[in-house]
Amino acid sequence: MSKRLKWNAGEIMAFLNLEFPQAFDDPGKYVIEHLDATSITVRRRTDAAHLRPGGTVSGPTLMELVDVAAYFMLLALHGETARLCVTSNLQISFLRKPQAGDLYCRVDLLKHGRVLSVIDCRIASGDGRLVAHAQTTYYMSPEIVWV
Amino acid sequence: MSKRLKWNAGEIMAFLNLEFPQAFDDPGKYVIEHLDATSITVRRRTDAAHLRPGGTVSGPTLMELVDVAAYFMLLALHGETARLCVTSNLQISFLRKPQAGDLYCRVDLLKHGRVLSVIDCRIASGDGRLVAHAQTTYYMSPEIVWV
Amino acid sequence: MSKRLKWNAGEIMAFLNLEFPQAFDDPGKYVIEHLDATSITVRRRTDAAHLRPGGTVSGPTLMELVDVAAYFMLLALHGETARLCVTSNLQISFLRKPQAGDLYCRVDLLKHGRVLSVIDCRIASGDGRLVAHAQTTYYMSPEIVWV
Amino acid sequence: MSKRLKWNAGEIMAFLNLEFPQAFDDPGKYVIEHLDATSITVRRRTDAAHLRPGGTVSGPTLMELVDVAAYFMLLALHGETARLCVTSNLQISFLRKPQAGDLYCRVDLLKHGRVLSVIDCRIASGDGRLVAHAQTTYYMSPEIVWV
Repeated sequence: MSKRLKWNAGEIMAFLNLEFPQAFDDPGKYVIEHLDATSITVRRRTDAAHLRPGGTVSGPTLMELVDVAAYFMLLALHGETARLCVTSNLQISFLRKPQAGDLYCRVDLLKHGRVLSVIDCRIASGDGRLVAHAQTTYYMSPEIVWV
Repeated sequence: MSKRLKWNAGEIMAFLNLEFPQAFDDPGKYVIEHLDATSITVRRRTDAAHLRPGGTVSGPTLMELVDVAAYFMLLALHGETARLCVTSNLQISFLRKPQAGDLYCRVDLLKHGRVLSVIDCRIASGDGRLVAHAQTTYYMSPEIVWV
Repeated sequence: MSKRLKWNAGEIMAFLNLEFPQAFDDPGKYVIEHLDATSITVRRRTDAAHLRPGGTVSGPTLMELVDVAAYFMLLALHGETARLCVTSNLQISFLRKPQAGDLYCRVDLLKHGRVLSVIDCRIASGDGRLVAHAQTTYYMSPEIVWV
Repeated sequence: MSKRLKWNAGEIMAFLNLEFPQAFDDPGKYVIEHLDATSITVRRRTDAAHLRPGGTVSGPTLMELVDVAAYFMLLALHGETARLCVTSNLQISFLRKPQAGDLYCRVDLLKHGRVLSVIDCRIASGDGRLVAHAQTTYYMSPEIVWV
């Protein structure tokens, strides 16, 4: 298991801004607040467009956050060679209605395999309450060189 | 199990356009192609903004399609009283990379309960190949009147 | 995708009886009722030991049935080289309480990949009612020779 | 959320031995090693009958452990009124092959709701390595009295 990070938060965001401008052109949308060799915390700004009736953040916004935060973890570990890592499975339980405001997604790398990596994600709202718990499996890119 | 539909495709889309203008203001984004008492088929137009490297449609676009199509099914069955039905769980397996172009989501209502409803979703690309398989559980709205 | 079956029902059961005598020594426990290149139906005899309060079959009995029936499908396709295929993920929704009596598990192979195969399973009780819906991903054995 | 435990480890095991003698007649099979208001750790003894080729513990043994340990948590919180709590959903990722020997399942109660409770489970083998990660949703028994 590689334990050295290849990219820091700035390098990840610069890559995504270049590679997926349509999704990552807004610099404040996703902010990496913490990053180490097995975990990452991503803050997601939300605004009116993500709300559902009752003022809660929509489920798809939370699912996208899980997918994005897990991808950030793989980019941090492998740099550009993680580009073609793809989600093979994602499972999410919605626990409480998140109120409007920023969301915090804490990612833990449970397994870092040559073929599959399994990632646990917990999303909390600004008041620290857990609003969703997810688990996602990524199929690792064949471009990654393991040493 | 209620077997009479309360709303048809036009009524569902009119409600969503009014209730969630930020998500459903584009009339061609989601089109209900088929609807009966236990299933629905939704066509999702995709464009460049949904693509990932290699020209495939992004995972979050597919997850949102599952969530939306399942919600359409509950609105069809219960009309406006389904408004506050919320997803409690969603699980998706990505089977093949969907190429750019329209996606077709076939929803089957496996269980229509007073508290929980369980829905199976299969997403195919325009060439008919299955690209994702999902299962979602909705917590039913307490506003629904069961007769 | 290999479409020719390598083993029939009798060959599968003979192999398992030899390989896992502790789990498959009882010839009537699992019966393959149907088998083709992409699907299989397995009947599972249940008795008092599998019941929970209220006379329903236990959840673990259903989960084991999913796991076993999916494994049968891979053995049918690949014969002994599927021996080391392992489950990487399993997700199940329990829809209704199954009453005592035989269960029927219908397996559909959604994706038959060189690394991962994804299998849909629906379990019905003797009266034909759907009692559980599951999806499982198998990591394919490296011993399999693909032609 | 009730934070007082109704039953201790001995009371849970005595109840199960009486109620499900066929599954809990062996006093050493499941041992509760730790129990507090939001978590529980269960040790599961394994022997030859649970092994698969290569000497690893079978998937169904792990799934049953998740289901059982989550049920223990609800019995600890609610006593006999939790008897009719039922699993509505279970999702498990198998991370590494567990070697023969005892397994340790750590359960965390993520949500303790009046209708649904969501439980996170991590299974480790004797050497402390994580072998599976699961998430299960229980439908709470209507017999539970909430104060």
